[in-house]
Amino acid sequence: MQTSLTVNRRSSGASREDLASVCINTVRMISIDMVQQANAGHPDRPLGAATMAYVLWTRHLRHNPKNPEWPDRDRFVLSARHASPLLYALLFLTGYDLTVEDLRQFRQSKSLTPGHPEHGCTPGVEVTTGPHGQGFANAVGFAIAERWLAATFNRNHHEVVDHCTYVLASDGDLMEGVAAEAASLAGTLRLGRLIVLYDANSITPSARTDLTFSEDVGARFEAYGWHVQQIDAQDPIAVDAALSVARATEDRPSLIVARTHIECGSPHKHDAWHVCGEPLGIEDGFLAKRALAWPEDLRFRVRTDVLVEFRTAIAAGSELEAAWRRRVDAHRIAHPDLAEGFARGLAGQLPAEWDAHLPVFTAADGAMATRGASRTIINALAGVVTNMIGGSANLDSSARMAMKGQGDFESPITDQRGGVSTQGLAAIVSGFAGRNIHFGLREHAMTAMMTGMALHGGLRPYGATFLSFSDYMRPSIRLAALSSAHVIYVWTHDSIALGEDGPTHQPVEQLASLRAIPNMIILRPSDATETVEAWRIALQHENGPVGLVLTRQKVPVLDRTVLAPASGLARGAYVLIDPPNGLFPELILIATGSEVSLALEAHARLTREAIRCRVVSMPSWELFDAQPRYYRDTVLPPAVRARISIEAGSPFGWERYVGHEGTTIGVSRFGVSAPGPIVMREFGFTPERVVEAATTLLQRRHDLEA
Amino acid sequence: MQTSLTVNRRSSGASREDLASVCINTVRMISIDMVQQANAGHPDRPLGAATMAYVLWTRHLRHNPKNPEWPDRDRFVLSARHASPLLYALLFLTGYDLTVEDLRQFRQSKSLTPGHPEHGCTPGVEVTTGPHGQGFANAVGFAIAERWLAATFNRNHHEVVDHCTYVLASDGDLMEGVAAEAASLAGTLRLGRLIVLYDANSITPSARTDLTFSEDVGARFEAYGWHVQQIDAQDPIAVDAALSVARATEDRPSLIVARTHIECGSPHKHDAWHVCGEPLGIEDGFLAKRALAWPEDLRFRVRTDVLVEFRTAIAAGSELEAAWRRRVDAHRIAHPDLAEGFARGLAGQLPAEWDAHLPVFTAADGAMATRGASRTIINALAGVVTNMIGGSANLDSSARMAMKGQGDFESPITDQRGGVSTQGLAAIVSGFAGRNIHFGLREHAMTAMMTGMALHGGLRPYGATFLSFSDYMRPSIRLAALSSAHVIYVWTHDSIALGEDGPTHQPVEQLASLRAIPNMIILRPSDATETVEAWRIALQHENGPVGLVLTRQKVPVLDRTVLAPASGLARGAYVLIDPPNGLFPELILIATGSEVSLALEAHARLTREAIRCRVVSMPSWELFDAQPRYYRDTVLPPAVRARISIEAGSPFGWERYVGHEGTTIGVSRFGVSAPGPIVMREFGFTPERVVEAATTLLQRRHDLEA
Repeated sequence: MQTSLTVNRRSSGASREDLASVCINTVRMISIDMVQQANAGHPDRPLGAATMAYVLWTRHLRHNPKNPEWPDRDRFVLSARHASPLLYALLFLTGYDLTVEDLRQFRQSKSLTPGHPEHGCTPGVEVTTGPHGQGFANAVGFAIAERWLAATFNRNHHEVVDHCTYVLASDGDLMEGVAAEAASLAGTLRLGRLIVLYDANSITPSARTDLTFSEDVGARFEAYGWHVQQIDAQDPIAVDAALSVARATEDRPSLIVARTHIECGSPHKHDAWHVCGEPLGIEDGFLAKRALAWPEDLRFRVRTDVLVEFRTAIAAGSELEAAWRRRVDAHRIAHPDLAEGFARGLAGQLPAEWDAHLPVFTAADGAMATRGASRTIINALAGVVTNMIGGSANLDSSARMAMKGQGDFESPITDQRGGVSTQGLAAIVSGFAGRNIHFGLREHAMTAMMTGMALHGGLRPYGATFLSFSDYMRPSIRLAALSSAHVIYVWTHDSIALGEDGPTHQPVEQLASLRAIPNMIILRPSDATETVEAWRIALQHENGPVGLVLTRQKVPVLDRTVLAPASGLARGAYVLIDPPNGLFPELILIATGSEVSLALEAHARLTREAIRCRVVSMPSWELFDAQPRYYRDTVLPPAVRARISIEAGSPFGWERYVGHEGTTIGVSRFGVSAPGPIVMREFGFTPERVVEAATTLLQRRHDLEA
Repeated sequence: MQTSLTVNRRSSGASREDLASVCINTVRMISIDMVQQANAGHPDRPLGAATMAYVLWTRHLRHNPKNPEWPDRDRFVLSARHASPLLYALLFLTGYDLTVEDLRQFRQSKSLTPGHPEHGCTPGVEVTTGPHGQGFANAVGFAIAERWLAATFNRNHHEVVDHCTYVLASDGDLMEGVAAEAASLAGTLRLGRLIVLYDANSITPSARTDLTFSEDVGARFEAYGWHVQQIDAQDPIAVDAALSVARATEDRPSLIVARTHIECGSPHKHDAWHVCGEPLGIEDGFLAKRALAWPEDLRFRVRTDVLVEFRTAIAAGSELEAAWRRRVDAHRIAHPDLAEGFARGLAGQLPAEWDAHLPVFTAADGAMATRGASRTIINALAGVVTNMIGGSANLDSSARMAMKGQGDFESPITDQRGGVSTQGLAAIVSGFAGRNIHFGLREHAMTAMMTGMALHGGLRPYGATFLSFSDYMRPSIRLAALSSAHVIYVWTHDSIALGEDGPTHQPVEQLASLRAIPNMIILRPSDATETVEAWRIALQHENGPVGLVLTRQKVPVLDRTVLAPASGLARGAYVLIDPPNGLFPELILIATGSEVSLALEAHARLTREAIRCRVVSMPSWELFDAQPRYYRDTVLPPAVRARISIEAGSPFGWERYVGHEGTTIGVSRFGVSAPGPIVMREFGFTPERVVEAATTLLQRRHDLEA
């Protein structure tokens, strides 16, 4: 360690350097205290990373502790999963709305200081991290958002978006594929405002990293196109210099490889891998404090001069925000239209009459894939909801996502490796103002980046891939749901009906698995018209992800002149058609997506056989379950127990609606490679099969009642 | 292109080089023919990669077309998702049991040539690939298996395991995080027998790769510790030389970056990104054939001399296998014990009395976490089931996986970057014979590698992480299930009861989501004794993955002197206890895992209140659903409709067992960070709540019947 850790406690004339040491050690000691108070948690990361954190938070980070929502603040993302005490200590010390009592409540029920940082729980926590690698990828999303907003809204002399995204990442983060994907794209996109401090402590919870992680991380990031520096994590001057260089490097994202040692200052456990996750014992804590000449018997001790030093952030932050507000005012005068869009985006509002130009489909349009309808809808929205930004995990020609004429999101700097910039004629909406993101075959990072973009604020991200590849996205979907991030997933190729690509590409269990995630809405529209309604919900639902599940194959546009209007989608399920002549149904067919038109065919046949059949379109379980009981009982009257669900996916969970006595028509095994219509027939998705199931079910009930 | 593509069709004295060209073009033309016959599929990859494939399959690959199961064959993994026609063409041409008629049936129902390669469907297909990146990671598993088997069973002059794993990978594969994770570990492990041909055609289905993938892939792999070569993919001499160098490089895995152009030979669509996924039109096909001087009107044309050339693989393969069998015979004489273990492993058999030393737990052992019981069991099995190999995604101290004294799986070569080899005293079971794999924080790659290891044959892989991180594993779990791979997942920290780590680490929807996957068994044992039975199932079930779901917190070892024996686990669910005095139950509590002891507490209270209660332990839905109806009706008599499920996970799907009229006690939202017992109480997992739910339910039924 190059800095002096000697603390002259009584000298009020301590040099800046001494004060810095005490500040750093204060962060360390608070972390030890929190972990020991909770008797759970990880003191290693805070100890090793304290110097970096101190330098970043006091010399570089532009933030306003009294307004954690200030839009132009730098973002700090704690990807390193176990360093939450470090973050809480920094938030407390720099003056966020967090008290010592909150620190004492670390990892306790209903506290502001949960085990891992939770966005929405603690002021100043930008994103919920915890599972390795996620924060890193979220941060790339933050950096994309910043560049897009800057390119879209800044004008000469009017810079209303101008900030950095900082990440503290661990070995564990950089082993994860999601971070690798995000790092590769960040390099391609030349996201110069992204700066990652890599706390290279060469330790993982199970073993020394040389057993499992011998790669040259710096060289890897250089291969991605990043700017890479190597420093000693304990040297504040080196940290400061590296951060300055990183900020000055505008054409590439920066990785600062900071070598550290876990548990700096703890004499027993220095560099000992087995300590990870074990709180320092009471004795160890004392020893660590003694080694740092720290009062051993006091917890959460903060010297006044230390607090004063950290809390300069309050005045500085207030000034920064005030200067920004002046810039925003000037921007509003110079560019009123732009400013209006900027403000609306930040407020998360939709423009007035945003849905006035949504397409209207009719049965006369013939059959079309719901993914095709979705493309039409996206393009209708693109010109109105001007902060929609997104793309697909590189299956664009299949997933039908691109917004025409909205440009590609890419660095305005021509690729020096010989790549050809697509700028030129389309320059106005290209470069960083482009709205079509080419995520590459990186479903997982796409999802985590979308969360970062959404939580950044100012834009509305969407991302697409095949439904079966939602599996790749799952860890990040979960965190988006947990963070109530407003993101829209567009999943196409939604069943075995996709055909020839076979079982690896045919989703089976995905619908059930996605529906099981809390705080998320899944919509599987039955036709083009319901797809319009689905997008309407997707844009308006703000407290969590919405997933649209769309067909590859063509399905009829339902004839709404004889069927109930598609606006029923908003209630999750609705009666599409009933038996003729106002008769009460004896049988209910409940279908979703492409199987609704199959249910209608069966309805026609059953009606001819004088069976009183109702068809319910159920695009969303979550929306339906949220309806009041009277509505649910109207759609699915408890007295009608002969119920059949029809969905070309796993029947898992459908017992909720059809009960013990009903029948599920679904897919209980993996699919097969063959043309779509043949696959559907082989798996029993035919009107004949539905009619047969219906008559069997009614016969059984008849027998029961007889 | 450096090779002559002029074909002298009539000259029987065509030079070797000309013959090579015709062979290569035959692979290309067959691919075009297959895609056009199916009118679906991707001709691009086969066209560009044909030269590499030809050189590899005719000059390097050691295989036996007449015995695709020959254990010491080189493995060829087609990771490049859309190149299945290439693989089918090679299998047909080299003499596997595949006919021209099979090629004609490409992508048709029940054919041997599905859209993406499916292991178990087509002879010679080593693994089911399709979703990007998976095959690459599978291949690392193959290479691990080979090195482990070689280190374990080879002795001086007796090399019974000695083969390579070859991969054909695409840009898409190398963008995926799962491949990045696997590549990093392969570098750390110095898997010299792994050779990846990277078909760098600079194209993805949506756009030119410079928009999304500008990184220097070769430099990245060098950073991982790989040996990297750059060649022209169309130059057979360069391909041949690169493969020879790669094979000679024993201390590192090899990446051969082969630049190619999509659709070589197709004059209209050369390097045109939009063609990907569109079959060449009839006209394009003719043009491509004309450009290559190929007869335009014939499909699936193979010249006799071409067939003869390819089919030399049959005699060569037969000879290779015969030589190997002689080595195996000599090995058996020299090392009979080793040979027995080797043969048993290859046959997938367990040793006699393998389960004789499984631990026996009793209530007197007090409470213990099921993950703790699992560790004891693994260590009891380790000495007997000597081809168990595995580890955790680097949470080892938490997941309790290590087999003591079985060494770490690592390269015997000391890390030149300064890492310290742990060899020395433990050398006998260390190096590549070590059985504890440090997967690193790479859950996804771990899972895909396990599949490769299992499909390689000879060993029994297991892998562990927290249940909530099963989300990271999901794409590979699905493929393992689809491939019927015998792998064992050990998931610990199985509910909100894990406590302080909070919602990001607390699984909620994972159990439901995993149960929804076809062809997979999930086991959530209630105590240490059921954990023994769960491991018994896990080792014996051979046709798909088994997932063990284990607690972090301590749970009582149930008193089997008064409760039913844990062997009931094999039937998925069983009656643990009934009302006293042989009374018929009026209420059934169905619980899994740690909630079984809670159900037993509730049972005691309900019995005191004269409520006739049964407790069913249901560790596995899948095993229970596979029982005959009479058994299921014995455990859950249809007449008893007052049923309550108790599981600290999403109630999603439990309606299957409790019906419309039952009650589910579960977790319908994300967890919270607080000590485990407090979290459980806050979420209602208390005997009081169960008793209350029971009385409410019985009252409701009583009212209904009144």
